[in-house]
Amino acid sequence: MAKTIGILGGGQLGRMLSMAAARLGVKTHIFEPLPNPPAGDVASKVTTADYSDEDALKAFAMSVDVVTYEFENIPTEALDIIESFCPVYPGRNALETSQDRLAEKRFLEGIGLSVAPYAQIDSLKDLEGALEEIGVPAILKTRRFGYDGKGQFKIVAKNQAVEAFDSIKGAPAVLEGFVRFEREISIIAARNKNGEISSFDPGENIHLDGTLHSTTVPASLSHALQTDAVLLAARVLNALDYIGVMGVELFVTQNGLTVNEIAPRVHNSGHWTQNACLIDQFEQHIRAVLGEPLGDGQRHSDSVMTNLIGEDVNHLEKFNNYALHLYGKADIKAGRKMGHINQISPKST
Amino acid sequence: MAKTIGILGGGQLGRMLSMAAARLGVKTHIFEPLPNPPAGDVASKVTTADYSDEDALKAFAMSVDVVTYEFENIPTEALDIIESFCPVYPGRNALETSQDRLAEKRFLEGIGLSVAPYAQIDSLKDLEGALEEIGVPAILKTRRFGYDGKGQFKIVAKNQAVEAFDSIKGAPAVLEGFVRFEREISIIAARNKNGEISSFDPGENIHLDGTLHSTTVPASLSHALQTDAVLLAARVLNALDYIGVMGVELFVTQNGLTVNEIAPRVHNSGHWTQNACLIDQFEQHIRAVLGEPLGDGQRHSDSVMTNLIGEDVNHLEKFNNYALHLYGKADIKAGRKMGHINQISPKST
Repeated sequence: MAKTIGILGGGQLGRMLSMAAARLGVKTHIFEPLPNPPAGDVASKVTTADYSDEDALKAFAMSVDVVTYEFENIPTEALDIIESFCPVYPGRNALETSQDRLAEKRFLEGIGLSVAPYAQIDSLKDLEGALEEIGVPAILKTRRFGYDGKGQFKIVAKNQAVEAFDSIKGAPAVLEGFVRFEREISIIAARNKNGEISSFDPGENIHLDGTLHSTTVPASLSHALQTDAVLLAARVLNALDYIGVMGVELFVTQNGLTVNEIAPRVHNSGHWTQNACLIDQFEQHIRAVLGEPLGDGQRHSDSVMTNLIGEDVNHLEKFNNYALHLYGKADIKAGRKMGHINQISPKST
Repeated sequence: MAKTIGILGGGQLGRMLSMAAARLGVKTHIFEPLPNPPAGDVASKVTTADYSDEDALKAFAMSVDVVTYEFENIPTEALDIIESFCPVYPGRNALETSQDRLAEKRFLEGIGLSVAPYAQIDSLKDLEGALEEIGVPAILKTRRFGYDGKGQFKIVAKNQAVEAFDSIKGAPAVLEGFVRFEREISIIAARNKNGEISSFDPGENIHLDGTLHSTTVPASLSHALQTDAVLLAARVLNALDYIGVMGVELFVTQNGLTVNEIAPRVHNSGHWTQNACLIDQFEQHIRAVLGEPLGDGQRHSDSVMTNLIGEDVNHLEKFNNYALHLYGKADIKAGRKMGHINQISPKST
């Protein structure tokens, strides 16, 4: 396995992917526009270049055996160049589906899954019509490049249509109705090229200000819903002929599971696996993109993962017996994910 | 904690120390004479230079906050240079004690611990006299630079004295009598500058051809002997005012525990901690040398660590449900440690 994996993006996910690759004796090469990326500290090589730099992309792609990524908003032109030299996993259909909220919802509905009520919004008129149908509260979201609450506007009264539409500057959008949910969970699952699938146990998420605060495993779920979540993830992975790890965010409602969104990559809500499973999400992803058999993703312990956001990182005294994971970011900024902690306890169910 | 740790030695121990440092957001700088060291793949910086290269040592020491090492045979002159710029942990007394088998045995006896019968050997006459006293079988070992069975000669008959003495080429040596033991165990413990000590559970070791084959945790030990092992390790650490992780190899005899040897560093027989403890030996070592509180070294699972030596790395099919740790070494050679696997099962006792 003396191979090299190229990783697009040098943030904390790229960093933890690099460490997982190293555990398997595999080198990594990070491609990242910003200098001194967190992943660079644990990678064999770093290219600092923009995604529009064709020469840099070519040299990068030629230096590695396979390319993967830590974020889904990779420009199509960059992918075109890389794919002419080496494979990119997860594949194009997964990226294209998850890059566009409208395509994602249509795909999920198409394979029989439940999603929040939504409407395509290309004009103020579309928005006004959709608000009549879906009602308030609702959220206007740009179709592309949104994450952690960015590119979103929460509409609580129908007369906010103009303000909301202006806020997204005319970008193609979707209006999403609110889903009444009991809890938010996510499921992290891996699939390799042989169609082998391995799912981690579902985790229960708490978001604060649109950002993940904590994930607790096991989630408070009936056995039936746990099974539903696993089967649902497998359906998504198989439908996309997916290779790699995916994060699937779900709402638990009175009518079962509704998909919030899918992310074609390792996921913040899967960080608990680092300390509560023999093989974590990062290693499963590396195994999948290398074409290796997946590892044993069984949970040996219960776990709570808590994100360290901004100054949280200087207030660890309130926690006990935790594994600390810091991302090596140069500066603390409000809202910036600086690290996380994992706490474990003996396995309950 | 935006610090940099310098690590002398770029092998697998340096590599796993680097990854542990990265988990804590700490950068590493590897100093290693051989090119392309395994640790270099996961370090921020690598210096390729000899331990006699004063300029390189100075530049290295000036670029880091603290220096540690993955092997104990560091030339004193190199240490002198580094210590004029930054602290080195574990400290000098630990290094000097463990670099010399004679000094080590005297130290251990001096703090009331049991060691194998031994004698200082500086001449053939010494050896002949010692063989009369200690008897055969016995092992002649060079006082310095021996590891994994190198620099050793097993004497099974007294008339082998000349052959044995010639084999070590007149190097200062010790003759060690054999210890009748029921099993070999080791205990890995950490101590920081505040005198805080954290010990992992003792592991039971199997050696093949002088090299560690496997470590099983828990060891088959009475509760009393487990406690003895922990207290013994603490006594060694305190006596040396030690900072860092130490590996202590012990024989379990009918009369209790006899110390085989101590290693002032992370230890192969502690690799099981990576998958069976919340905080592993590598992270404890990094925490200790940084002056941070030690983490929770409790074992959450039972574990078996098996070394992958030479071609073993291509014969993994006989194992199930393991975590693989490969060292990224370029070539497979007979006897070379290529990696290890950890298997876990629910905690028994």
